[in-house]
Amino acid sequence: MDSIKAWAALEKNQPLQPYSYDPGPLGPEQVDIEVDYCGICYSDIAMIDSEWLPTQYPLVPGHEVVGRVRAVGAQAKGVREGDRVGLGWYAGSCGVCRLCLRGENNMCALREPTIVGRHGGFAERVRAQWQWCMKLPDTLDSLRGGPLLCAGVTVFSPLYMHGVKPTHRIGVVGIGGLGHLALQFGRAWGCEVTALTSSPEKFDEARALGAHRVVATGDAQAMRALAGAFDFLLVSARGFAGWDLLIDTIAPGGRLHQVGVVMEQVPVRVRPYLMTWQRSISGSSTGSPSTVAEMLTFAARHGIVPRVEQYAMRDVNAALDRLRSGQTRYRVVLASGF
Amino acid sequence: MDSIKAWAALEKNQPLQPYSYDPGPLGPEQVDIEVDYCGICYSDIAMIDSEWLPTQYPLVPGHEVVGRVRAVGAQAKGVREGDRVGLGWYAGSCGVCRLCLRGENNMCALREPTIVGRHGGFAERVRAQWQWCMKLPDTLDSLRGGPLLCAGVTVFSPLYMHGVKPTHRIGVVGIGGLGHLALQFGRAWGCEVTALTSSPEKFDEARALGAHRVVATGDAQAMRALAGAFDFLLVSARGFAGWDLLIDTIAPGGRLHQVGVVMEQVPVRVRPYLMTWQRSISGSSTGSPSTVAEMLTFAARHGIVPRVEQYAMRDVNAALDRLRSGQTRYRVVLASGF
Repeated sequence: MDSIKAWAALEKNQPLQPYSYDPGPLGPEQVDIEVDYCGICYSDIAMIDSEWLPTQYPLVPGHEVVGRVRAVGAQAKGVREGDRVGLGWYAGSCGVCRLCLRGENNMCALREPTIVGRHGGFAERVRAQWQWCMKLPDTLDSLRGGPLLCAGVTVFSPLYMHGVKPTHRIGVVGIGGLGHLALQFGRAWGCEVTALTSSPEKFDEARALGAHRVVATGDAQAMRALAGAFDFLLVSARGFAGWDLLIDTIAPGGRLHQVGVVMEQVPVRVRPYLMTWQRSISGSSTGSPSTVAEMLTFAARHGIVPRVEQYAMRDVNAALDRLRSGQTRYRVVLASGF
Repeated sequence: MDSIKAWAALEKNQPLQPYSYDPGPLGPEQVDIEVDYCGICYSDIAMIDSEWLPTQYPLVPGHEVVGRVRAVGAQAKGVREGDRVGLGWYAGSCGVCRLCLRGENNMCALREPTIVGRHGGFAERVRAQWQWCMKLPDTLDSLRGGPLLCAGVTVFSPLYMHGVKPTHRIGVVGIGGLGHLALQFGRAWGCEVTALTSSPEKFDEARALGAHRVVATGDAQAMRALAGAFDFLLVSARGFAGWDLLIDTIAPGGRLHQVGVVMEQVPVRVRPYLMTWQRSISGSSTGSPSTVAEMLTFAARHGIVPRVEQYAMRDVNAALDRLRSGQTRYRVVLASGF
C-alpha cells in the first residue's frame, strides 16, 4: 500500500513534524482506516513528553479516530470497506486468552495500544485489528465521535462494570475532557449528579452538562459537609491534595473510582475509611470493545456528545498547546487534511 | 434485675479484675443473655490496651458470646426466654435509618459496639438489642459458636457482599483467628484456595483447614510468581510490609479486601496497579445480622467451626496472655463460671 503521511514527535518535548511511513502489507486481521477526524487526549501529550515509560520515537500520536474503512484483511470480521468506524486507545488483542474470551480484551496481556510501538491517528490513515474498529451510530456526527472512543468509554465503563444504579448519588471530580462526559452519562444513567471542580468558572457549565449541584473542591467546609454523600465517586482529576477528604465523601458500601492518570502513590487509611464503611477504591482506563459498543448505543439514545474545539490537522501544534493550556472546552479534535 | 459479676479492665494495660455492675432496668427492645461461653478477639485486647480511641474504663470485654436468653423486653422480637443465642461485635442499631432498612445495620450511625460505652461478655450476663441476638443452629456446639459471631462473619461477609464465585481463585493472607476460618469458608465456597503465611510451621495446618496450596509471604520470589493469581485476596494480617507485591497478586478485575485491623496509612499505586488491571481495594469489619444468619446456616451445612483453646473464665488473664503470645491455635474461648 501507499506510504502514510502523518505528524510525528521525533524527540521528547518537541513540536510535531511532518512525517511519512510505510505501513507494510495489511495483516490478515487488520483494517486500514482513512482518518476523517482525530481527537487529542491527555495521553497523547503524556506520550509526546515521555511522561510514563520512555516513549519510542518517532511517535505518531492520535487514538480518538473517526474514519472510513479503506481496506480489510482476509480474516477481518464485522467491518467492510466504506464503513464508518471509530478507533480508541487499543488497536489489537490476542483474541484467545481468558480475558479476551470473556470480552475483557482491554486487559489482554498482548493488547496493543494504538500509539505505543505503532503509529496512530494524526495521519492520513491508521491500522487496527478488526475487533477494535467500532461501527458508529448514524446519528453520531464524525467531528464529535472520536472523543467518545477514548474519553467516553473511560467514564462510561466504570458505571457499567461496577453496577451503578439509577438510584445512586454520584460525584464527578474534575470537569474537563473526561468529566464533562461523565456528567452527561451520570445524568442519563438516572443518578443524582454532583460536580466537584476546582474551577468556579465551570459551575454553570457543569449544571448545563447535567450536574444537579456543583461543589468547589477548594472549599474544605463544603467538602467536609459531603461526608458519606456519594454511592459512587468518579475521579477524573489527575491528582488531588485532600485525598482523605475525598474518600470520606463515599457513602457506606460505596466506591471511589479513579480514571484520571495519577502518577504518585496515594496514601489510604484502610481503617477507618475502608473497613468501617465497607468502601471500595478502584480504577480503570478505557474499556473493552463490547463496552464501547454499549456506550455508543447509550450515548446515541441520550444525545451524549463531547463539546469540542476543532482545529485543522496542519495546526496540530497549536491544538496541542491549546490542550496543554487547560482552557479547552472540553476536547480538541483535528480535522484531517494532508 | 440482679447486679452482674464480670471481669473488667480498670485502667490501661492492667490485668482484668473481678468487677460487678448494675445493668439497670431491661429496655423494651433489650434481651438479657446468660453467658455460657465467650471467645476472645484481638479487638478485646485493643480495647483493654486503649489502642484505638481512648477506652472508657471500667471496660468489661467480650463480644463472642454464646448463651441463653434469660429475659426479653416488652418490644423485643424473634427471641424467647430459654433460646440459645450468639452475640458479636454489635449489640444495637437504630432500626429506622436507610442502612438499617436495607439490612446493613452494622453501618448504622447509631450502632452500639458490644464493648464500647457498655459492658460485654466476660460476665455472668450481657445485654443486647433483639436484632443482634442470633439464634444458633442446633448442630453448632456452644464452645465453638462464639468465634463465628465475630471472626466468622468478618471473613464470610466479604465473600458474600462482593459476589465471590466458586470458580474464583482466592488467597488468604494471615492464618490466625480470622484466616483459619477464611480457609474453611473459601474451600466450602468452591474456590481454589491459597494460604499466604509468614509462619512455615502453619503450612500443614493450612492445608488441613482447606488450602489447596500454601505460600510463604517472606519468600519474595514465590510472591512475585503469584502476580495476577487471585480473583479475591482476603487480608487478615494486621499489617504487611510488601504492599505493592500483595496488590500485584490480584488478577485483572479482582479485589484485595482487608479485614485485619491496619492502623497505618497504606500507600497505593493507583496507576498502574488499580487502573491498568481494573482492580479494587476494599475493607470491612464484622457484618450485619442478616449476613450473620446466612453465615451460621452455611457454616452448619459445611461443618465449619473454629479451632479453639478453652480456658475457665477465672483464668481470663492467662487466656489473654496466651492470645497476646501469637501462639494460639486458633481462637481462645472462656467457659463461664463465677
